[in-house]
Amino acid sequence: MAISSYHPPTRTLMGPGPSDVNPRILEAMARPTIGHLDPAFMDMMNQLSQLLRDTFLTGNAVTFPVSAPGSAGMETCFVNLVTPGDKVVVCQNGVFGGRMKENVERCGAEPIMVEDTWGEVVDPNKLQDALKSNPDARIVAFVHAETSTGAQSDAETLVKIAHDHDCVTIVDAVTSLGGSPLKVDAWGIDAIYSGSQKCLSCTPGLSPVSFNERALEIVKGRTDKVQSWFLDLNLVLGYWGTEAKRAYHHTAPINALYGLHEALVILHEEGLENSWARHAHMHQALRAGIEAMGLSFVVKQGDNLPQLNSVVVPDGIDEAAVRSTLLNEFGLEIGAGLGAMAGKVWRIGLMGYAANPKNVLLCLGALDAVLTGMGAPINSGMAVSAARQVLSTD
Amino acid sequence: MAISSYHPPTRTLMGPGPSDVNPRILEAMARPTIGHLDPAFMDMMNQLSQLLRDTFLTGNAVTFPVSAPGSAGMETCFVNLVTPGDKVVVCQNGVFGGRMKENVERCGAEPIMVEDTWGEVVDPNKLQDALKSNPDARIVAFVHAETSTGAQSDAETLVKIAHDHDCVTIVDAVTSLGGSPLKVDAWGIDAIYSGSQKCLSCTPGLSPVSFNERALEIVKGRTDKVQSWFLDLNLVLGYWGTEAKRAYHHTAPINALYGLHEALVILHEEGLENSWARHAHMHQALRAGIEAMGLSFVVKQGDNLPQLNSVVVPDGIDEAAVRSTLLNEFGLEIGAGLGAMAGKVWRIGLMGYAANPKNVLLCLGALDAVLTGMGAPINSGMAVSAARQVLSTD
Repeated sequence: MAISSYHPPTRTLMGPGPSDVNPRILEAMARPTIGHLDPAFMDMMNQLSQLLRDTFLTGNAVTFPVSAPGSAGMETCFVNLVTPGDKVVVCQNGVFGGRMKENVERCGAEPIMVEDTWGEVVDPNKLQDALKSNPDARIVAFVHAETSTGAQSDAETLVKIAHDHDCVTIVDAVTSLGGSPLKVDAWGIDAIYSGSQKCLSCTPGLSPVSFNERALEIVKGRTDKVQSWFLDLNLVLGYWGTEAKRAYHHTAPINALYGLHEALVILHEEGLENSWARHAHMHQALRAGIEAMGLSFVVKQGDNLPQLNSVVVPDGIDEAAVRSTLLNEFGLEIGAGLGAMAGKVWRIGLMGYAANPKNVLLCLGALDAVLTGMGAPINSGMAVSAARQVLSTD
Repeated sequence: MAISSYHPPTRTLMGPGPSDVNPRILEAMARPTIGHLDPAFMDMMNQLSQLLRDTFLTGNAVTFPVSAPGSAGMETCFVNLVTPGDKVVVCQNGVFGGRMKENVERCGAEPIMVEDTWGEVVDPNKLQDALKSNPDARIVAFVHAETSTGAQSDAETLVKIAHDHDCVTIVDAVTSLGGSPLKVDAWGIDAIYSGSQKCLSCTPGLSPVSFNERALEIVKGRTDKVQSWFLDLNLVLGYWGTEAKRAYHHTAPINALYGLHEALVILHEEGLENSWARHAHMHQALRAGIEAMGLSFVVKQGDNLPQLNSVVVPDGIDEAAVRSTLLNEFGLEIGAGLGAMAGKVWRIGLMGYAANPKNVLLCLGALDAVLTGMGAPINSGMAVSAARQVLSTD
């Protein structure tokens, strides 16, 4: 094998994440590494936590990025809040609810599953029923933005039901943070995790989390040891907590944190609500084009995430061949279906920096051309114009 | 708080890690992000695994970087190999042996501690005795290169003893990989973890690991579920394993992996043995200077790591004031003592890109000046010349 420096191709990333990274973020990541206990780094950490609070819309003191991808943020919530023997109600309407179930079981706890059809939102009535049947449940976990389908559940209502039954909530916001409305304090979410590589448009590898006092009471009150040393909040908070002095726990991923900081500065400059509006607008343009082609969405309009669009693959079309043609000819990445939806859908992301008119038009034009070339039964040549019409309205 | 892009100061990093990062690595990390399932990324992953094998001196198929810092690499080894109820012999001669004990306990297993004085190497006779007294022990864990003290234990002998007692070995090589002799296959090490930010001179955030067939048999034979979903090898290997198709487990930290790849290309260009020799030579120069000042090392010569030098703080000197003066006036970071050694030692790293003559001379000159200014009882003005003399011999 010839050994040499690696120069990746330049892609347009419109899959389920990573999304296109703003060059300002890449530049920030290339700044000189300094020590993780350097006083000059502590200021950056404080600002980073504050920017995350502003993005989660929370005053939670404990708000920081876990030093690993979103799955580790999920695990941070579960291992710290779930104790062996607990009953945990898990709402599943896609892949990531299933991953929550795995976490509950690996904590030695009992998952009570509330199942909804993939592509639909979590049904609050089913959660209500599950909690009535399981009055000893202590925790409710659900996915706000199901990345595997693009369904957006009503987090505010689900949290309210959980609290009515004295349960603490764990919410997956990997794909919603920064891209669509998410209000941690207003909705009363107790513990939440997200990812750096979706609507924050940073590189993958970090998982922002936030815990309110109610969640921290559980963590601080534990008499047993959390099963993960690396993710044990009581230890991690020696470094990321509110104490003036930051104590060594593990070595923080310095340059990745520079990148996340820059991503949040960019979001701050745009304004959180403006970012939500931009994602919604780009989604409308994409939707107009997809529907003009005669294709359909998996998720009912109104229940859908603007930033993650699951589109049904037309009958007789090899979805993988479409994706590799898009990648090889247009440098465009869109996502495949996961789990039960493998082979049946494409997932088109419009996340963060990638949620822009150029990407919408590229994606529609390319998809139109490739599907037409394959003889798919679509209305050829209509998609781009339909999208342009939406884009021309502000 | 004023929100703006973060521009770190430029430091010289001679603490226990992160070490100075080669600008080539920073530049590599700023290359365009591509998808974690992009075929163009798969080639990079294959080459990265091969470069890690070359650096660990192993043919182990399962050799890859865990998507999180060294502590998560440690946890990967423990949660996959240790099952509840196991007896695990842990040799402790510093902070990181204690972290191993924490891992064993959190796996529901029983640690049998073999204690040595901090600053000394692990005593093979004590390990021998512990295994004789505990014939039912299944695993032996020890730290090859104790970053908290700078002691380098005889990994080859310790592994041999463990194998004589039918135990599998877990070895911490966070600080040794790339900096001093480490031969995974020749020494028979079964499971090993390291870090990206020490002698590989990459940014922090990744933990290279390697597992031989004997270790994998345990992992594959487990009937219970590994307590961490994120670190479960049987799942992670769907992505990092030897199958032609790479399946989604978690989203890999793409740009951090570009950086690690570049770090390993640089090491490959230098040659592993040349890198070991360079670290040894820079250590000799630093040692000459430190001893010319009249200061002493914590670890006996011959038992020490060249890349991590614990130096005894002279009586009556405020070690923290020395470090902050070095940082503020010289932009030079050296490390404090950890745990039992806090306040008593400095830890001077000579790791990877930072193991160079300029750094040795800067460190000695700065330390000499600062200690002299504080009225410390040292031989002033001798250190730099003593080091130059060593540096002039190749």
